[in-house]
Amino acid sequence: MIENIKIIGFDADDTLWQNETIFKNAQARFYLLLKDFASKEDIAAQLYKTEIANLPLYGYGVKAFTLSLLETALKISGGKLPAQTVEQILLLCRQMLKEPVVMLDGVEHTLKTLYKKYNLIVATKGDLLDQQRKLNKSGIHKYLHHIEIMSEKDIKGYKQLIKSLNIKPQEFLMVGNSLKSDILPVLEIGGKAIYVPFFETWQHEQTDQTPPQDGNFFEVQKITDILKIIS
Amino acid sequence: MIENIKIIGFDADDTLWQNETIFKNAQARFYLLLKDFASKEDIAAQLYKTEIANLPLYGYGVKAFTLSLLETALKISGGKLPAQTVEQILLLCRQMLKEPVVMLDGVEHTLKTLYKKYNLIVATKGDLLDQQRKLNKSGIHKYLHHIEIMSEKDIKGYKQLIKSLNIKPQEFLMVGNSLKSDILPVLEIGGKAIYVPFFETWQHEQTDQTPPQDGNFFEVQKITDILKIIS
Repeated sequence: MIENIKIIGFDADDTLWQNETIFKNAQARFYLLLKDFASKEDIAAQLYKTEIANLPLYGYGVKAFTLSLLETALKISGGKLPAQTVEQILLLCRQMLKEPVVMLDGVEHTLKTLYKKYNLIVATKGDLLDQQRKLNKSGIHKYLHHIEIMSEKDIKGYKQLIKSLNIKPQEFLMVGNSLKSDILPVLEIGGKAIYVPFFETWQHEQTDQTPPQDGNFFEVQKITDILKIIS
Repeated sequence: MIENIKIIGFDADDTLWQNETIFKNAQARFYLLLKDFASKEDIAAQLYKTEIANLPLYGYGVKAFTLSLLETALKISGGKLPAQTVEQILLLCRQMLKEPVVMLDGVEHTLKTLYKKYNLIVATKGDLLDQQRKLNKSGIHKYLHHIEIMSEKDIKGYKQLIKSLNIKPQEFLMVGNSLKSDILPVLEIGGKAIYVPFFETWQHEQTDQTPPQDGNFFEVQKITDILKIIS
C-alpha cells in the first residue's frame, strides 16, 4: 500500500483518454496523401525526424504536429507539393481537434473513488486550448483540484509543479502511461509513481531505462488496479 | 492611490514586451508573398476573417496564426498556391518564434519596485511554450510569483484565476494594454485595473466599450506611471 500521499497527479493522453490512436490514424491518412512521392516507411522516418527537430520550437500538440506534417510533405515532394494536399493536411488537423474524447475504461470510477480522500490533479503536455477542450468534454472536471499544462514533463517541470502545489515530493504520486514523462522524472525527485501502460506509445516517449525498484515505483495493468494499492 | 491590493497581474504581450509589431511585420511579408493573387487590403480582410473563425479551434499564438496564414493563402490563390510559398510561410513562423524579446521601457524598474511589496504574476494568452520562452528570455522571472497562461481572458478565466490565487477579487489589480482582455472583465468581477495603452492593437482586441468610472479603473501613459498610484 502507498501511504502519506496528499496529491495524486494523472497524465491525460492515453492515461485518461485515447490520444495516440488519433495521431496514428492521422499519420496513416498522411502517408496515403503522399503515396505518389515516397513509401510509407520513408515518410514515417522523415516525419519523426522533423517532429523531434521541431520539438524545442513548436512543443507538443496537434498544431505543432500539423506544422511538422507540412514541413515533411514539402521535403518528401521535392518542391512539388500540390495546393490540394496542403488543404487536406489542414483539414486533417481540424478533424483531429474536433475528435470526440474517448475515455479509457474505469477512469471515471477511479477518479470518483479517489477524489473523496485525495486532491487530484491532471498534469499533461500538449496544446493548452486543446487539452482544456478535452477536459471539458470528458466530464471529469468535477473530480479535479487543479489542471497543469506543462511545456515539458521533466525533472525541472515536476519540481516547479510540486513547489506550486506546496507539498513535499514524497507526498506526490503520479499516474501515467509514459515511463519517460510520467514515471522516471517523478521518481528522480523523490515522488511516487504508478505506471499504467497503454497499448500504443509514441516513439519519442519510449525509453530503455527501467525505474528503480525502491518501493516508490508500481506497475498495474489497468487504471482501476491503482485502487488496490492506494485507497 | 490604490490600496488593499495583494496580487498584481501583468499582461505580457505589448504590456511587458513588444508583440503586435512582430505580427504586423509578418503580415506585411505575407501580403508580399501573395501579391500576384490579390491586393494587400483583400488579403488582410480574408486573413482577419480566417483568424477569427479559427479562434475557438486554434486559440492564440504563432502556431495558430501560421495555420490561418496557410488557410488564407489557399483561399486567396484559388487552389494555385506554389509549394515554395507554403515553405516561405512556415519559415515566417519559425522566424517569429525565434524573435528576440524586446522589453518595453520601464518594465524592469516597475517590477523590481513592486515585487518587494506585492506578489506579482503574469497572466497572458498565447502558446504555452512560446510565452514561457519569452519569459525566460526576458529576465523578469525573478520578480514573478506565478505565471498563468490562459486560453481566454474573459470573466470565467479571471474568476478561475482569482480562485486559484486564493484572494478576493478586490485584492486583485490587473495591468495591461487591452481594454477588452485585461481591463473590462477584471472590473466586471470586482477587481481593479490599470490600462497602459500600446501604440498598436490587434483589431480583435479593440472595443467600443468604455470602463466604468467608479474608482476601480485607472489609465496611465507608460508603465512606470503605475508606481505613482500604487506603491
